[in-house]
Amino acid sequence: MHSDKQLRIGLFGFGVVGEGLYKVLQQTPSLKANIEKVCIKNADKKRNAPASLFTTDRNELLFNENINVIVEVIDDANAAFEIVTTALKNGKSVVSSSKKMIAEHLPELLHLQQETDLPFLYESSACASIPVIRNLEEYYDNDLLHSIKAIVNGSTNFILTKIIEENLSFTEALLLAQQLGFAESNPKLDVEGFDAVNKWTILLNHAYGIVEHPSNILFNGIQNIQLSDAVVAKERHYEIKLVAQAKKLHDGKVAAFVLPQFVKQEDHLAFVKNEYNGVVIESGFADKQFFYGKGAGSFPTASAVLSDIAALRYDYQYEYKKLYFHEPHVLSNDYYLKVYVSFEDKKYIPKDEFEWIEEWHAGEGRNYLVGVIHISAITGKAWWRDNNTSLILLPEPIIENVEIVKLKKRSLELAGVL
Amino acid sequence: MHSDKQLRIGLFGFGVVGEGLYKVLQQTPSLKANIEKVCIKNADKKRNAPASLFTTDRNELLFNENINVIVEVIDDANAAFEIVTTALKNGKSVVSSSKKMIAEHLPELLHLQQETDLPFLYESSACASIPVIRNLEEYYDNDLLHSIKAIVNGSTNFILTKIIEENLSFTEALLLAQQLGFAESNPKLDVEGFDAVNKWTILLNHAYGIVEHPSNILFNGIQNIQLSDAVVAKERHYEIKLVAQAKKLHDGKVAAFVLPQFVKQEDHLAFVKNEYNGVVIESGFADKQFFYGKGAGSFPTASAVLSDIAALRYDYQYEYKKLYFHEPHVLSNDYYLKVYVSFEDKKYIPKDEFEWIEEWHAGEGRNYLVGVIHISAITGKAWWRDNNTSLILLPEPIIENVEIVKLKKRSLELAGVL
Repeated sequence: MHSDKQLRIGLFGFGVVGEGLYKVLQQTPSLKANIEKVCIKNADKKRNAPASLFTTDRNELLFNENINVIVEVIDDANAAFEIVTTALKNGKSVVSSSKKMIAEHLPELLHLQQETDLPFLYESSACASIPVIRNLEEYYDNDLLHSIKAIVNGSTNFILTKIIEENLSFTEALLLAQQLGFAESNPKLDVEGFDAVNKWTILLNHAYGIVEHPSNILFNGIQNIQLSDAVVAKERHYEIKLVAQAKKLHDGKVAAFVLPQFVKQEDHLAFVKNEYNGVVIESGFADKQFFYGKGAGSFPTASAVLSDIAALRYDYQYEYKKLYFHEPHVLSNDYYLKVYVSFEDKKYIPKDEFEWIEEWHAGEGRNYLVGVIHISAITGKAWWRDNNTSLILLPEPIIENVEIVKLKKRSLELAGVL
Repeated sequence: MHSDKQLRIGLFGFGVVGEGLYKVLQQTPSLKANIEKVCIKNADKKRNAPASLFTTDRNELLFNENINVIVEVIDDANAAFEIVTTALKNGKSVVSSSKKMIAEHLPELLHLQQETDLPFLYESSACASIPVIRNLEEYYDNDLLHSIKAIVNGSTNFILTKIIEENLSFTEALLLAQQLGFAESNPKLDVEGFDAVNKWTILLNHAYGIVEHPSNILFNGIQNIQLSDAVVAKERHYEIKLVAQAKKLHDGKVAAFVLPQFVKQEDHLAFVKNEYNGVVIESGFADKQFFYGKGAGSFPTASAVLSDIAALRYDYQYEYKKLYFHEPHVLSNDYYLKVYVSFEDKKYIPKDEFEWIEEWHAGEGRNYLVGVIHISAITGKAWWRDNNTSLILLPEPIIENVEIVKLKKRSLELAGVL
């Protein structure tokens, strides 16, 4: 074969992912990759590998001239950043699975990657076993990618599936997710959307060349969703999903956000149940593509890390085509969203900010509306997150400037106002 | 970036795929790939490109020292074989989309690829826009791939969708497929399963290292399916799909075939409608993965060819890991299938060859049974294809030797025989 490169790996972390990697690499000599040294935090823990392999001193890996690849699968974002940057500066290729770290330090990491011209791969950081980063890099050219939407967080998707399909309450569903190991004991990162927006930050770069801090991307989790919202969804034959999406608008800018959404049952994303992830890409060339698989867990994560290690044998690098070879896209702050909003008291709802309201339901205890609102009335505003208010997007939620006048007129006609 | 390699392409074929490629490469200087010369069959046809680009002499490409990549997107399998082999022998990397040619000449092509150590890529030959070959190469190690099943032919899937969902007759559905451009004017290659088994031959190599001539793989198309079969499918809430599948058995061999199958509505493949393709991979590490996209057509084909061209910039080659680095798998001829068989006269059905028969329906005109039969009573036999007989697999159709005794006993108990 064309590559005889021997990969000598320094591994950070020996939890389920790290140990799994170690075992598979031992059983796969054809990969020409072996682990030279493993850095762990706790030296006293019993490990299923020779003691000589382990150290607690990260410099034994980072400054080891015999090691040419650093793989880190640890949980600590700050430590991961130090490890990754030090490794690159020391001429080592890097494979990382730390989505939070990558999302929050994207500009520095991109800069360092360019400066060192070394492979820095992180397929496992978004959708784990789904090879979405590699496919975005290889398959979609800048101006051909119309839209991408995805379910990128397995825990919240598991909870939503149990709420909608098995009528569990949010609390019951969360407990079940924790029992099955799909949610952390502190589920805030998953449930409130932080994990999803970190992954989306990473994918927006590979999809559109957008480099933004996650805090600049509009997002929410599923913590505001009420039982009554699930009832409405079922009446209308919708699923509720936490959807990360990005769409190229007519002005060339990109609308991108992570929000709960009503999804039609025939939508590809409705097919994604329980802890699975799914990605739907629409492009000019390949048309509609759908990738589905496990987005988290030790084995799916290890499989993605392995595929990165395999790619290092032919010096594969992300090229960041959309960022470096094209005019990178920017986020739009000028479009409209079609939303369902349920609330306890209408005094908390800025009715006048809506372009139009198509439905208004007043019931006992809880009310809801369906309407169209400009993104500026949502971004950075608190009304739709506070006071037990719940905002869920409708299917095809994005309405562009060029469409709004026509749609408003038609809507008002239908309502008998015009 | 790490690769400054300039790709100078000699292109065979300037139909919709070829012309599409030419345009995209012109618009994408970042790819560092340009088309030096195009070989066409018909010099008189008007082309949307400078006349100086074209030649009808293939040697102007194959022996042109300025050209380092040959891309062929022509329809003639014999010519394609000559072009590909001559190009490799002349030190040129090759991208091909000729599934029939590749499937029928796999041993020679593999041998030549090894001898020359040159990239020979053909992602577009199976499932077009779905990057299934690359993913099998990169993601699944030998012993981890439990099974793979797929819808690899868009024309037959379109026809089956129209029959089941819109109650069209086979003839009406085929005509519609032809009108919409999803089926050739001579639809035999699609309808009778030849195209599907060619693709499956290619994928079996990347999945399991199996190198077989397509004629050695059990297959059928959808030509035997009757309206009454569609009625039975609907009664039982099944779809009918032409499913290519392969499963690793307990003895390490692989059961592989392409046959019509009843598919449950919750199965991933039931989600694949109309002209789309889908692939479901089950592996130890990544668990279940599902890829969905357009499997044919000029744009999806061009997008896959483009991704191959992009991969050539970093000298990407298939490694054929399962073939060269592991003990390659062999096809099994010792397992059982659970089948539905509908027929006009029971005299054509070898009842005694069935291990057991669970259902036997005699109706007016057409009858059917559901039973379990050894693969040796199907492979190479004509009874299930002749005399208007129709054989359709049940969901989870493969029964292994280790299971057969227990299942037979249970089945006979249920029938009150034991």
